[in-house]
Amino acid sequence: MDVGVIGLGRMGRGMAQSLVRAGHRVRVWNRTPSAADGLDGVTLVPTAAEAFAGDAAITMLSDDAALRSVIVEGGLLDSGTRPGLHLSMSTISVALAQELAAIHGRAGVPYIAAPVFGRPDVAQNGALNIVVAGDAAVIEVARPLLDAMGAKTWPFGTEPHRANAVKLAGNFMLVAAIEAMGEAAAFAEGHGVAGADLLDLLTNTLFASPVYKGYGASIAAGRYEPPGFGLRLGLKDIGLALSASAEVGVPMPFAGVLRDNLLDAVSHGDGDKDLAALALVSARRSGR
Amino acid sequence: MDVGVIGLGRMGRGMAQSLVRAGHRVRVWNRTPSAADGLDGVTLVPTAAEAFAGDAAITMLSDDAALRSVIVEGGLLDSGTRPGLHLSMSTISVALAQELAAIHGRAGVPYIAAPVFGRPDVAQNGALNIVVAGDAAVIEVARPLLDAMGAKTWPFGTEPHRANAVKLAGNFMLVAAIEAMGEAAAFAEGHGVAGADLLDLLTNTLFASPVYKGYGASIAAGRYEPPGFGLRLGLKDIGLALSASAEVGVPMPFAGVLRDNLLDAVSHGDGDKDLAALALVSARRSGR
Amino acid sequence: MDVGVIGLGRMGRGMAQSLVRAGHRVRVWNRTPSAADGLDGVTLVPTAAEAFAGDAAITMLSDDAALRSVIVEGGLLDSGTRPGLHLSMSTISVALAQELAAIHGRAGVPYIAAPVFGRPDVAQNGALNIVVAGDAAVIEVARPLLDAMGAKTWPFGTEPHRANAVKLAGNFMLVAAIEAMGEAAAFAEGHGVAGADLLDLLTNTLFASPVYKGYGASIAAGRYEPPGFGLRLGLKDIGLALSASAEVGVPMPFAGVLRDNLLDAVSHGDGDKDLAALALVSARRSGR
Amino acid sequence: MDVGVIGLGRMGRGMAQSLVRAGHRVRVWNRTPSAADGLDGVTLVPTAAEAFAGDAAITMLSDDAALRSVIVEGGLLDSGTRPGLHLSMSTISVALAQELAAIHGRAGVPYIAAPVFGRPDVAQNGALNIVVAGDAAVIEVARPLLDAMGAKTWPFGTEPHRANAVKLAGNFMLVAAIEAMGEAAAFAEGHGVAGADLLDLLTNTLFASPVYKGYGASIAAGRYEPPGFGLRLGLKDIGLALSASAEVGVPMPFAGVLRDNLLDAVSHGDGDKDLAALALVSARRSGR
Repeated sequence: MDVGVIGLGRMGRGMAQSLVRAGHRVRVWNRTPSAADGLDGVTLVPTAAEAFAGDAAITMLSDDAALRSVIVEGGLLDSGTRPGLHLSMSTISVALAQELAAIHGRAGVPYIAAPVFGRPDVAQNGALNIVVAGDAAVIEVARPLLDAMGAKTWPFGTEPHRANAVKLAGNFMLVAAIEAMGEAAAFAEGHGVAGADLLDLLTNTLFASPVYKGYGASIAAGRYEPPGFGLRLGLKDIGLALSASAEVGVPMPFAGVLRDNLLDAVSHGDGDKDLAALALVSARRSGR
Repeated sequence: MDVGVIGLGRMGRGMAQSLVRAGHRVRVWNRTPSAADGLDGVTLVPTAAEAFAGDAAITMLSDDAALRSVIVEGGLLDSGTRPGLHLSMSTISVALAQELAAIHGRAGVPYIAAPVFGRPDVAQNGALNIVVAGDAAVIEVARPLLDAMGAKTWPFGTEPHRANAVKLAGNFMLVAAIEAMGEAAAFAEGHGVAGADLLDLLTNTLFASPVYKGYGASIAAGRYEPPGFGLRLGLKDIGLALSASAEVGVPMPFAGVLRDNLLDAVSHGDGDKDLAALALVSARRSGR
Repeated sequence: MDVGVIGLGRMGRGMAQSLVRAGHRVRVWNRTPSAADGLDGVTLVPTAAEAFAGDAAITMLSDDAALRSVIVEGGLLDSGTRPGLHLSMSTISVALAQELAAIHGRAGVPYIAAPVFGRPDVAQNGALNIVVAGDAAVIEVARPLLDAMGAKTWPFGTEPHRANAVKLAGNFMLVAAIEAMGEAAAFAEGHGVAGADLLDLLTNTLFASPVYKGYGASIAAGRYEPPGFGLRLGLKDIGLALSASAEVGVPMPFAGVLRDNLLDAVSHGDGDKDLAALALVSARRSGR
Repeated sequence: MDVGVIGLGRMGRGMAQSLVRAGHRVRVWNRTPSAADGLDGVTLVPTAAEAFAGDAAITMLSDDAALRSVIVEGGLLDSGTRPGLHLSMSTISVALAQELAAIHGRAGVPYIAAPVFGRPDVAQNGALNIVVAGDAAVIEVARPLLDAMGAKTWPFGTEPHRANAVKLAGNFMLVAAIEAMGEAAAFAEGHGVAGADLLDLLTNTLFASPVYKGYGASIAAGRYEPPGFGLRLGLKDIGLALSASAEVGVPMPFAGVLRDNLLDAVSHGDGDKDLAALALVSARRSGR
């Protein structure tokens, strides 16, 4: 397919590479063009409008503001060269997801939400888990793209914003897992047990899953740089989860704790570290 | 070896069966003797003192009070027939663990802490993960027993109470995982996504581990009876974790949330259900 | 002075009455004109622009959206008849307060923030506590208006948004006081002590202050309607406090608890009751 | 009356002085006799048993362990010279209060619980607020003592432990008030407002009560030594409140936050400071 990719952060780059590898013709655009350096097999286009065209356009931007700026304020939906469908893959608020579905509907551009789970290296390998929601027929059209980027696609019905809610729920669980490990490690250290030994046991038995193994190893090693998933980005996602939970009247006490501890981390200069650095908060608060 | 097992709850029964299967001579004692009904190949003895004898004695009781009552108040350490070693496998407070180590030391009875991870069926299959701490030479003597009951033994040094701290840390992480799933499911439901669909995705990808799969399936199915791990027992363990964290000055905000939500569950009549019923609290608080 | 009042909720009405009583000439505007019914001595004007004129304009609207809609989207700052100064008295976000200061600066309209503490009856008696921030000379010009509405004016420097931060901090403390009473009352009831008796003791001794006496009496009597300060409004204010705390990296665990319990209350149908109904959450969670 | 006072901490000393001033004959005992230095008009007796005698005995000890050690383990209830009644004024657990009522009943010694609100200087002035529960006739006998020590006595029925529950509820609200001020001050500071200015406004208006004014002034001045009410003692009381709430199934999320922040304070070396130093936690966590 002829596809445009808007947003070449580490995730977007990896996805573009997977698309090229699968034989798609890929145009790319990024606010800072140098982000495309070293991306083989793609065509760098000078305007977002030229990427928002063809059989499909994919957006993979860092937050609500970036996506809103390009799509809504950039007026792409009113431009002449609109894509056959828009695959919206950024991690954004449920509220913006609902708004985007509405304005695409009015503009007559098929719109699917398809946020993903997986780190940049997983994106590069085309092995993401993709959460998809939207009109079933449109999803079928986008299938070759989804298959190129993902190991598996998980359908969540026809309302696009639900995929975004699922993504936020998953990221909430991920940050909660890190916090639980951080508290457990501080507790263990308080009793003379190396946190690394505790996490070695637990992440190889009851909690032997990718999230626990990956972040557990980082905490055990005290290795927080370079960031795979930046702590400040995690704070943003917890903020989105809290907003979306308030909209539907769902108390989330764990999310409240996460917000505070992530703020504590940022206020202590760890915002640019990996999310695993959340564990430093528990250690610091216990006087270590 | 000639081993006595004190405490025949579902865990103790399973462990006794594994010991018999491995060829050990097993005496058993329980406050209510009928708990031994149907246990083949063991010798039911009429007093705890007769079980607290031989090459080794294993205790697997439900809480501090039960263990204290049998060992300390029961005066077993002053009795004539003392065992070659005491393998203390109950989930107890760190404070009691420290006290037990001290009084065994004074009484001259070798003492090892060896709490376990695993449900009753895992105990029956001899596939527990056993956390062990104590004098290395004594652990070596107990090795055949540990090997009979466990798939793997995880050593945590020479101070017995550290194994108990590790056990509490693990149970804390387990309850935290359930709470995270409960909040995430309530959040998803609020946005029109079936909690079961959300958990199906997450427990098969990022969180594909025994704890998440097992409890996630229970939450997804709304299946909380019969209890595998009773909710009231989970509340007890979180209480022990909170006490032990206070002793060493470690804040644990997740544990505080868990305490409150488990109390909420108990106050709503769910104390005898499975720990997975903790998820009902998040649902109820969101008005469902 | 010749003053326009925009927003005739219960607070705005009371303030308009105090202004009339002090001899000022008062024009009023409200989206729903009937809100002015029964207000003696004021002139109802048909457009917001006609109220946003004269020596001074006062805005007292329910939230960010209402204020933004009238002032920013309504284009009042670009209209020909602009006031000598704008006294912005609504409880709004710190972010909007900063934005308003900036756009008034560009438009050349002197801008002061002057949010208030006090219920509608206090507004009607001209006995509010007014938190004021902005250019000192402009505040002096507004002094007769502030004196007409308030028992006391508390200055917080020259940056208007700081007055809004103070207002949010005060409302946070107010909701926290209610939560503390609610938890304490549920605790007491659990031990067979009537919550009313507990609150009678504490609000007449250690906590003998207007907030504790007023809300304490409501909780003691189980009297939550009609609302003096609506619970949903309290939830909005806690949301603003949480947003503003995130902007400056300040963890606020009490505010997180308040958010969740207010959401719980709303999800159980108590959003239109008085803020004191927050105490029902503690009672319900304990199974009463 | 002929009264013995056991426990001469700062509170017990003040109470003894008030009793002397009212004309009672006062025997005193303290584990460390030098605690009686400078106490005029009292008779220092060499054993607790000699103080636990006469018309009435008052106990005012620092915690469960101290009271249990003197009364229960000291075997005072089995001694020959038992008092006409025991006025138990320490801040202790609800569980110990229930146990004491039971064993006094068996021993035939009338027992009243009478914990107090007020700092040492208030005790010295005989102006405490005394929470009393127990048999009405016994309370009447003790009335002259209560009147000598207290400005007012607040009756809470016939079951002694309820007075202890009320005391814990009050101390919980006190610590919660400090936490609320600490978070509000950190929030204000984050927005460029001096915490002292914020607290000056709020503790003179909405929150003009002894607790807010007293602790608010300490926080505003950053004056945490010498301690009026030691932080570590506050942590003990929150622990008692949490235990007592668990016994009756009452979630208390604010108490959970307080526990963690007090632990944070202790782990950062502030355990011996005044309870107001809890505010340092909010400041530190926000990076100040």
